[in-house]
Amino acid sequence: MKNLAILGSTGSIGRSTLDIVESYPERFRVLTLAAGKNLESAYEQARRWHPRVMSMATEGDAAELRSRLRRDGIKEIEVSHGSPGTVQVATHPEVDFVVSAIVGVAGLEATYEAVKSGKSVGLANKESMVAAGELLTAEAQRHNKPLLPIDSEHNAVHQCLRGGRMEEVESIWLTASGGPFLNTPRSAFASITVQQALNHPTWKMGQRITIDSATLMNKGFEVIEACRLFGVPPERVKVIVHPQSTIHSMVEFVDGSILAQFSVTDMRLPILYALTYPERIASSLRFPVMDLRHLDFTPPDMEKFPCLRLAYEAAREGGSKPIALNAADEVAVAAFLDGSIRFDQIPETIEQVLGETESRKPESINEILLTDAEARTAAKKRVQYLSRSKSPLPWTASAIHHGE
Amino acid sequence: MKNLAILGSTGSIGRSTLDIVESYPERFRVLTLAAGKNLESAYEQARRWHPRVMSMATEGDAAELRSRLRRDGIKEIEVSHGSPGTVQVATHPEVDFVVSAIVGVAGLEATYEAVKSGKSVGLANKESMVAAGELLTAEAQRHNKPLLPIDSEHNAVHQCLRGGRMEEVESIWLTASGGPFLNTPRSAFASITVQQALNHPTWKMGQRITIDSATLMNKGFEVIEACRLFGVPPERVKVIVHPQSTIHSMVEFVDGSILAQFSVTDMRLPILYALTYPERIASSLRFPVMDLRHLDFTPPDMEKFPCLRLAYEAAREGGSKPIALNAADEVAVAAFLDGSIRFDQIPETIEQVLGETESRKPESINEILLTDAEARTAAKKRVQYLSRSKSPLPWTASAIHHGE
Repeated sequence: MKNLAILGSTGSIGRSTLDIVESYPERFRVLTLAAGKNLESAYEQARRWHPRVMSMATEGDAAELRSRLRRDGIKEIEVSHGSPGTVQVATHPEVDFVVSAIVGVAGLEATYEAVKSGKSVGLANKESMVAAGELLTAEAQRHNKPLLPIDSEHNAVHQCLRGGRMEEVESIWLTASGGPFLNTPRSAFASITVQQALNHPTWKMGQRITIDSATLMNKGFEVIEACRLFGVPPERVKVIVHPQSTIHSMVEFVDGSILAQFSVTDMRLPILYALTYPERIASSLRFPVMDLRHLDFTPPDMEKFPCLRLAYEAAREGGSKPIALNAADEVAVAAFLDGSIRFDQIPETIEQVLGETESRKPESINEILLTDAEARTAAKKRVQYLSRSKSPLPWTASAIHHGE
Repeated sequence: MKNLAILGSTGSIGRSTLDIVESYPERFRVLTLAAGKNLESAYEQARRWHPRVMSMATEGDAAELRSRLRRDGIKEIEVSHGSPGTVQVATHPEVDFVVSAIVGVAGLEATYEAVKSGKSVGLANKESMVAAGELLTAEAQRHNKPLLPIDSEHNAVHQCLRGGRMEEVESIWLTASGGPFLNTPRSAFASITVQQALNHPTWKMGQRITIDSATLMNKGFEVIEACRLFGVPPERVKVIVHPQSTIHSMVEFVDGSILAQFSVTDMRLPILYALTYPERIASSLRFPVMDLRHLDFTPPDMEKFPCLRLAYEAAREGGSKPIALNAADEVAVAAFLDGSIRFDQIPETIEQVLGETESRKPESINEILLTDAEARTAAKKRVQYLSRSKSPLPWTASAIHHGE
């Protein structure tokens, strides 16, 4: 029986994890939960799962949840809140495995504390590895505990890596769907609308990750994650565009053999893999092998998608650069979404901020958060400047199709 | 330094193995060689590699080789011959690893003796696993030594299986090129000519294996080999037609994940893998990942290719049946090649012989060879009958394209 802490229990990964616990009650027990701001969903989860500790983002929601549970006669659930609450959930002494699925830097501290207290951790929080990958992997190694990736690409890589030893790896090949603008001419990028950018061909996701997929920045983050998770230099992590997203990723070994992983695109699979590793347990999720038809693979266009190039540069420099990359991207994407900057100004903003960011090696979560804050400030300044000097955007639905 | 014995040193696998030794002299040493009837090639190999023992198929060739070497002043090579010579090569006390690459049942005894004497064995000899798989795997397990497949499909499976434990395997997926008659209508099978059948689209191979690829019997043998090598029942070994032959094979795990292996189609890769397992060492053989384009997968047509169905039946029954399957196929293919029977009479002959073969479990190589001989006799009788009663064959080049 594995005792689980779920950070981000009301989000998509959190709910999929609870689905798994529902299906395998003899294997997993929900011990602690950290929810965000969704009080209704958190209340339901508390009633259903009776965790030892449940944490909410705000003090107000925590108080409300506490009083509702008291009214229902449920007294054994400790309700906490905020960052200390999340850390409490992540480091509870009886927890064996922490699912880290809080979006953004909010999940960073609790994930780090979980690793530091010797927990096995399943990572769905991208920022943890992009911003704090060097710290996290060092702590995990010190405790000899695995950091198991919960996302289809790195989970696929983790599986393929079992076919050899780390020093036998020639390249890691991350597949990319290519996003909605794979075949859009570069000349049309300035006139891409928010609506067009939010229309991702393969995946239904949150707004930021959808835009990050359209700029290929998401793939850039994955390059950095792969470097940190698997201890390989950026030149050994390759991106290949594969619009069908059937093959989740590949590993090429020094002898010339390549292993590829695929499965149905259901997040429960990588979660299950992480929760049971090094075992595999039976699921009913089957990929019909006959559907392996007409797979396409092409190299990514780094000219058209400068975010990918910037991510490689940040990965090579390490330290403060990936932190700034992530922070500047979050600000730039928000500015694009609210109409302040153009689509092609997202990479422009990030490049500017990266150039302004001093190269250094943060050695604590506080130093990371400081770098993050500085980069956000720089990005906001840049966005304001672009926003003030912008010409009216040619946002007509047809502009993109006709090019210039 | 690994000391190698190569059974079948002048054949294609044998020569590729020697290429590898040439490239990695610090890792491998040629200790003993068993050649066949190619005296010139054997003589050159003896001069180049100075093995401790070199065996020839016939006493005459052995005597000739011995005298040539004496004339050259080379006295330290012991030259032997025949079945005892091959066994001597395979079981030499200083040999660490035996490459078993003699075609046909001729390689059976020496392979078995190698396994029995505790050697690690790389298997390229199909008949060993089809006819004696149960005996071989039992001996290998007793000595806790691996039987490493040297053919692209099983080698791929071996690599993919590293992604989990044997009890976590849902299915093994063997890919098949489909052979030259993948899209030929069944009604045209009676008029397939030898020339058409020898024209394999993907691989250049010997005559028997080329015909076996055209009937899909080769894939049937591979199903039986997979069952024996990996200890899985036939219903867990699936065949899938993949005309590009890019993906060499796949393993599906119980959790729903599938791992696939691919690489350039060069036999040196599986040989290198087998020789260095559990390590991988660097080669210059690189698969261009961008070539992973337009892969097709379709289920095989067991009506059109009855050999595959017969192989599954033989795999399920085990014991004497796979031995008879292999023996009857060898006779039937030879009869097709010399014009005695039609293409569609190959499976007909084999089905007849399988029906006549008593179901039993041979417990020694001698019993296996006896079953093999009986099946050959039965197959020859059947071939004679078909040959006598045949109508003139409609062997015109156009017949196959126009159907009936």
